[in-house]
Amino acid sequence: MEALKNRIKQDGVVLGSQVLKVDSFLNHRVDPALMSAIGDTFADLFAEDRITRVLTIESSGIAPAVFAALRLEVDLIFARKRKSLTLRDDLYTEKAYSFTKQEENEITVSKHFLGADDRILIIDDFLANGQAALALARIVEQAGAQVAGIGIVIEKSFQNGRQVLQDAGYRVESLARVASLDGNEIRFVEVEAEVKAEVE
Amino acid sequence: MEALKNRIKQDGVVLGSQVLKVDSFLNHRVDPALMSAIGDTFADLFAEDRITRVLTIESSGIAPAVFAALRLEVDLIFARKRKSLTLRDDLYTEKAYSFTKQEENEITVSKHFLGADDRILIIDDFLANGQAALALARIVEQAGAQVAGIGIVIEKSFQNGRQVLQDAGYRVESLARVASLDGNEIRFVEVEAEVKAEVE
Repeated sequence: MEALKNRIKQDGVVLGSQVLKVDSFLNHRVDPALMSAIGDTFADLFAEDRITRVLTIESSGIAPAVFAALRLEVDLIFARKRKSLTLRDDLYTEKAYSFTKQEENEITVSKHFLGADDRILIIDDFLANGQAALALARIVEQAGAQVAGIGIVIEKSFQNGRQVLQDAGYRVESLARVASLDGNEIRFVEVEAEVKAEVE
Repeated sequence: MEALKNRIKQDGVVLGSQVLKVDSFLNHRVDPALMSAIGDTFADLFAEDRITRVLTIESSGIAPAVFAALRLEVDLIFARKRKSLTLRDDLYTEKAYSFTKQEENEITVSKHFLGADDRILIIDDFLANGQAALALARIVEQAGAQVAGIGIVIEKSFQNGRQVLQDAGYRVESLARVASLDGNEIRFVEVEAEVKAEVE
């Protein structure tokens, strides 16, 4: 998605070779027009997939995901992230380790809101090691529902998240794929999936 | 806002006389079309107020606030909520005690994203004791910016939050004002502000 890549080039802040800060338009300050365009792009990519729900995780996934849900005319569910949790019968729960924050979170979704007939589009702001998306996918499968695909705003392609998710059998669509942050420069993966090229 | 009140009547779950659960369309599962209509209503209410930023707090405020920001053609900032925090020079920080969760949170906004020229619309999903909105307002004032008003999706009018915010000098616009949850019944405040009546 060209508008997104241009924005990352313009406003992304590189911290070392691993960290890309985009808190001026995605993670803290949010550009709603860009989020709307991102939502439209996800909706186009998954238009034929009979999505019944969009699932994301608080907090940074919510803004792009709510626009995708609006365009797909389905509800959004945002999973909750907690440090520790009393087990509760009415919640699906999965653990996800965040390498960035070096902490384990429990991710929860109410059992009321996912059913065996659902076809779920998972959306997240970042893909690094894939642990958060994988935890969401496991929750979908706990519910007996289907993961129709995983939509990522920014993929750090120099980490193994895409491989992890593809090895688990999931379709991954990332709107911007960062190949490297070396030398304080943001470089994108050159050849993107043809589907995305058509959409843009 | 009639559509919101009807939805609360239909899908809100009353737990005792104090708690109204709306996690089927606002707090966990989110109806994006309703969020869009809520955003439009806030944008209409504050159309003449030269808003330069919308400010909310993660996570449940983000969905309604991002649509308000889209319609007002300004950026959204979502404040971060943390249990405890190392003081950092680049963050505005305020404490807010949550009576619902019985815990104190630190609420933070990056100093980069608020300036003395800003006119801020604060949006939150619930108004109960007003502590979260007040903490956001104090952050705006730390930045030397102006609070143009506070937009609330659901006000629990049997708690003192509106009074607290009005006493502090702020304009409060709530789209649904719940007068009472007694007897397992949701009753709304009968006379709403004339501005809202005109918008609807």
